[in-house]
Amino acid sequence: MIDPDLLECFDNPAPQGAYLIEHTAEEFTSLCPRTGHPDFGTIILRYVPDRLCVELKSLKLYYQSFRDAGIFYEAVTNRIRDDLVNLMQPRWLELTTQWKGRGGIRSRITATHGTRPDNLPEPGHGR
Amino acid sequence: MIDPDLLECFDNPAPQGAYLIEHTAEEFTSLCPRTGHPDFGTIILRYVPDRLCVELKSLKLYYQSFRDAGIFYEAVTNRIRDDLVNLMQPRWLELTTQWKGRGGIRSRITATHGTRPDNLPEPGHGR
Amino acid sequence: MIDPDLLECFDNPAPQGAYLIEHTAEEFTSLCPRTGHPDFGTIILRYVPDRLCVELKSLKLYYQSFRDAGIFYEAVTNRIRDDLVNLMQPRWLELTTQWKGRGGIRSRITATHGTRPDNLPEPGHGR
Amino acid sequence: MIDPDLLECFDNPAPQGAYLIEHTAEEFTSLCPRTGHPDFGTIILRYVPDRLCVELKSLKLYYQSFRDAGIFYEAVTNRIRDDLVNLMQPRWLELTTQWKGRGGIRSRITATHGTRPDNLPEPGHGR
Amino acid sequence: MIDPDLLECFDNPAPQGAYLIEHTAEEFTSLCPRTGHPDFGTIILRYVPDRLCVELKSLKLYYQSFRDAGIFYEAVTNRIRDDLVNLMQPRWLELTTQWKGRGGIRSRITATHGTRPDNLPEPGHGR
Amino acid sequence: MIDPDLLECFDNPAPQGAYLIEHTAEEFTSLCPRTGHPDFGTIILRYVPDRLCVELKSLKLYYQSFRDAGIFYEAVTNRIRDDLVNLMQPRWLELTTQWKGRGGIRSRITATHGTRPDNLPEPGHGR
Amino acid sequence: MIDPDLLECFDNPAPQGAYLIEHTAEEFTSLCPRTGHPDFGTIILRYVPDRLCVELKSLKLYYQSFRDAGIFYEAVTNRIRDDLVNLMQPRWLELTTQWKGRGGIRSRITATHGTRPDNLPEPGHGR
Amino acid sequence: MIDPDLLECFDNPAPQGAYLIEHTAEEFTSLCPRTGHPDFGTIILRYVPDRLCVELKSLKLYYQSFRDAGIFYEAVTNRIRDDLVNLMQPRWLELTTQWKGRGGIRSRITATHGTRPDNLPEPGHGR
Amino acid sequence: MIDPDLLECFDNPAPQGAYLIEHTAEEFTSLCPRTGHPDFGTIILRYVPDRLCVELKSLKLYYQSFRDAGIFYEAVTNRIRDDLVNLMQPRWLELTTQWKGRGGIRSRITATHGTRPDNLPEPGHGR
Amino acid sequence: MIDPDLLECFDNPAPQGAYLIEHTAEEFTSLCPRTGHPDFGTIILRYVPDRLCVELKSLKLYYQSFRDAGIFYEAVTNRIRDDLVNLMQPRWLELTTQWKGRGGIRSRITATHGTRPDNLPEPGHGR
Repeated sequence: MIDPDLLECFDNPAPQGAYLIEHTAEEFTSLCPRTGHPDFGTIILRYVPDRLCVELKSLKLYYQSFRDAGIFYEAVTNRIRDDLVNLMQPRWLELTTQWKGRGGIRSRITATHGTRPDNLPEPGHGR
Repeated sequence: MIDPDLLECFDNPAPQGAYLIEHTAEEFTSLCPRTGHPDFGTIILRYVPDRLCVELKSLKLYYQSFRDAGIFYEAVTNRIRDDLVNLMQPRWLELTTQWKGRGGIRSRITATHGTRPDNLPEPGHGR
Repeated sequence: MIDPDLLECFDNPAPQGAYLIEHTAEEFTSLCPRTGHPDFGTIILRYVPDRLCVELKSLKLYYQSFRDAGIFYEAVTNRIRDDLVNLMQPRWLELTTQWKGRGGIRSRITATHGTRPDNLPEPGHGR
Repeated sequence: MIDPDLLECFDNPAPQGAYLIEHTAEEFTSLCPRTGHPDFGTIILRYVPDRLCVELKSLKLYYQSFRDAGIFYEAVTNRIRDDLVNLMQPRWLELTTQWKGRGGIRSRITATHGTRPDNLPEPGHGR
Repeated sequence: MIDPDLLECFDNPAPQGAYLIEHTAEEFTSLCPRTGHPDFGTIILRYVPDRLCVELKSLKLYYQSFRDAGIFYEAVTNRIRDDLVNLMQPRWLELTTQWKGRGGIRSRITATHGTRPDNLPEPGHGR
Repeated sequence: MIDPDLLECFDNPAPQGAYLIEHTAEEFTSLCPRTGHPDFGTIILRYVPDRLCVELKSLKLYYQSFRDAGIFYEAVTNRIRDDLVNLMQPRWLELTTQWKGRGGIRSRITATHGTRPDNLPEPGHGR
Repeated sequence: MIDPDLLECFDNPAPQGAYLIEHTAEEFTSLCPRTGHPDFGTIILRYVPDRLCVELKSLKLYYQSFRDAGIFYEAVTNRIRDDLVNLMQPRWLELTTQWKGRGGIRSRITATHGTRPDNLPEPGHGR
Repeated sequence: MIDPDLLECFDNPAPQGAYLIEHTAEEFTSLCPRTGHPDFGTIILRYVPDRLCVELKSLKLYYQSFRDAGIFYEAVTNRIRDDLVNLMQPRWLELTTQWKGRGGIRSRITATHGTRPDNLPEPGHGR
Repeated sequence: MIDPDLLECFDNPAPQGAYLIEHTAEEFTSLCPRTGHPDFGTIILRYVPDRLCVELKSLKLYYQSFRDAGIFYEAVTNRIRDDLVNLMQPRWLELTTQWKGRGGIRSRITATHGTRPDNLPEPGHGR
Repeated sequence: MIDPDLLECFDNPAPQGAYLIEHTAEEFTSLCPRTGHPDFGTIILRYVPDRLCVELKSLKLYYQSFRDAGIFYEAVTNRIRDDLVNLMQPRWLELTTQWKGRGGIRSRITATHGTRPDNLPEPGHGR
């Protein structure tokens, strides 16, 4: 089940300045707490690190730990936000979940932590 | 291994005014420091030169020197930013790395140096 | 070789107001000053004329005069900007060069002259 | 030859408020004043009428009257702008010409009259 | 675990003639038998029924029963093909699986049963 | 409920030769016979008339009569095919239904009547 | 009302060999014979002339003569086919009508005359 | 006026084998013989040369000689076909004209000369 | 260096019938044997297995073993084809390599083994 | 000037079977023999090797040797075809040149050598 202990950190290699990190996971699945049916989503994490960065393989394993959890979209979004904030204490963090839909309805949820630093590039900038 | 001594400069042919230079390298590879597996990315460099410009072939060779380095995405991004700032002392510099993904996660990191001059064209402007 | 004397002007037919002129040349070639290999680029000129406009056929011949010149991208960009500013003394001018890439790196350089007048249409507007 | 007397008006049916009119003519041809070769372009007219609107068939005939004129792109643009401003005295008018290219160079010229009213839809908006 | 007993049939409402049925399931997940990591795929079923049709909700539940199975792509493809053939004894059946990729490799497997009847519309026909 | 008596015919205005008629209805809804939830689909009818043609408004009303029917996709497809064949006795008829998906599965069913005459234009031809 | 006398011919300038003519009219309107509501369609005429060609302006006027006619799609298609065959006696002719839709149903009808000559370019060929 | 004497040839540099030449001219204009209004078209020439090839600049000047000619689409098509066949005596030639439309009708005419050699690449092949 | 011993097989789970397997690896790199510079390519493997299938993770490791090999595109293509044929003895196999380009030239090489079985779906079918 | 001695070969690493090689060079320039103005084109080479393959860097240098040659499109096409056939004696070869246009005319020329072997993948296949 959901296991934040899977998350690992490494020291921010450039702690003196603000820079933007973005990880997009397109293969996420959990279970609907009402029906038990699987949900499929995309998790977009953006953050400005302070002293720590989340290690990518551990992030993948942490996301996989939702596979058998019965949990609402809204709770997924805030749970990941909280676990990552607890782990890294970032300067700023934004967590967006996008869901392919159930019963013909597509959903997207966004939760944040902290204040967005000025002078950050726009999300999607540079694609 | 990573060798900033490969980088060469030439004198900015127009040092009196601010103008924007953008180099996009779509063929970049390094190694994951945890698993040793290869990572593949795109490196987008944008800068406003002061007295010096980086020579393009030397930039290619410098990027190639990461081929056998085991290094995190975040460290690649800040290392290139720092090496180029040390080399050129530009008025402004932005370094973005985009990674095709490992374990189903795509990543993008952006680090900057200095303050973006006003009146610069937008990124992507003119395409 | 590079010959700004090829450039010809004609009197701005509407000198009393600000309007925007854009010429995009997709067939430009020069030589790399290090390796001697040919470079291929696109030259995008945008300007607001004052008393003079550059004549289009002469602009084509001027661009063709770079065919055998060994010259960096940055110098091409600023040289064209300077030659056209000297010729026309425009109210505002922006010169962008885009290069197909050498060693897997695509480049784009933008240099300007003067301050962009307010109320000009956006670049790309009207396509 | 170029004949603004071909242009006809009719009374603006809604003179009390600002609204936007756009006419795009994709079949325009004139002659290069240097070489005599034909030029082919698109003429995009946008304006906010005051008391008068230009009649569409007369606009077509007026555009056709450039067919045998030897005239620069810049002069075409300002000539049409001026003739239509003289005819209609619009609140605001923007005239853009786009040219398929000669010698590998594509061109676009934009001239305006008056100040763009606030709250107008963006060009291209709603397509 | 994989449970073909979840599959239910209903009588083909038009058993006398050949017609084509296509079901595309974009939310499929199973586990890699080597690493235990989740795989994500799309399952495309095309068939010409004989006496029976597979009921859609039962098909969804059957696909969901692979969620905890450690199984190769090739075995998924042939297993589904076999279970559906056993269930329905269709005149013709084609089963394609598409996989988002693991280690930078995207995969697609196609298995068939029987001979494609003549005069069937092409796959993708009518879209 | 489903009411083929709503369908009306008119005499084929050109009964002596073969020609192709295609009607695409993008707004069709019925109910799932298992769950009672609404299904949404597109109905594509193609036929070569003999003595009769189906009147378009009556076809729309007939399609609307499925709104409260609990019926499988496969039965919708064959029911419409049969009702139209009974009505018109066409030389050839093809009926395709496309469904937006339920439980993450998109479906498409195609049923035909008679043999497609030679020398007919391809489906999609002329678009 | 529908008036085939509006149609005019001119002598085929190259009667000795087979060549293909295609006229696409995107602005056609007639009335529904049941409801009186306007229908909007596109008329695609393809033919291989024998001794005569239809004159384009007269074709436009003939199409305009359907404006107040209450007539089914199928009858429009065959009526135009017949009128043009009577007028020109072409070697081969194909007439397709496409209709924007009424009550959420889009339609397309195709009628032909004669046998398509071999070695003709495909429809849409050369676009 | 239309002047085939403007056309010039040069010796086919490879007369021993069949190869395909394609020239597409997107800037063609002539006049409607009924109304005097300008027509705008695209001329697509494809041919397999025998002993001679048409020189490109002379082809441009020949096309320009239609600028003041009042001539039907069908006659333009066959006239160009005939003039080029007379000039070059090619093994095979296909001439297609596409017209932007007059009175809301778009047109396309195709005329050929000779039999298409086997083993030629498809039109559009290799784009 | 290139090491076919990294390749592992598993038993074909459905050896009795022909089915199609496709693996596309977008992250491949080797070295140019002339200049030592890195090449970047995509490897597309399609095959019909007989008794054995190649295991996907071992295929990834095998591809990675080319990272330090100096080898021509043509040799990469045939080497992979040969190693996989030796390993699996498939009924049919096709190996395509696509290369991003060096010196402005993009390349693609395709080598096959055996005869393509009839009744296989088309490449790209079902996407 | 044009120098086929720049071309180098290496031994076909798989001479026993037929496979397809494709090299696309998007940066090619030569001069018009009439006007001296530069032409810009794309050169697409496809061949099935026999005993020899052309080395890619030498092909680039050979293409660059056309930079100062005044030569017709048709002669470029056949010259490259002939030089490569002389060099490699391939089983089959197809050479296509595409030209951006001069005087508003785009061109494409295709020349071949030998008979295309059966069972080769289609051009563009696998993209």
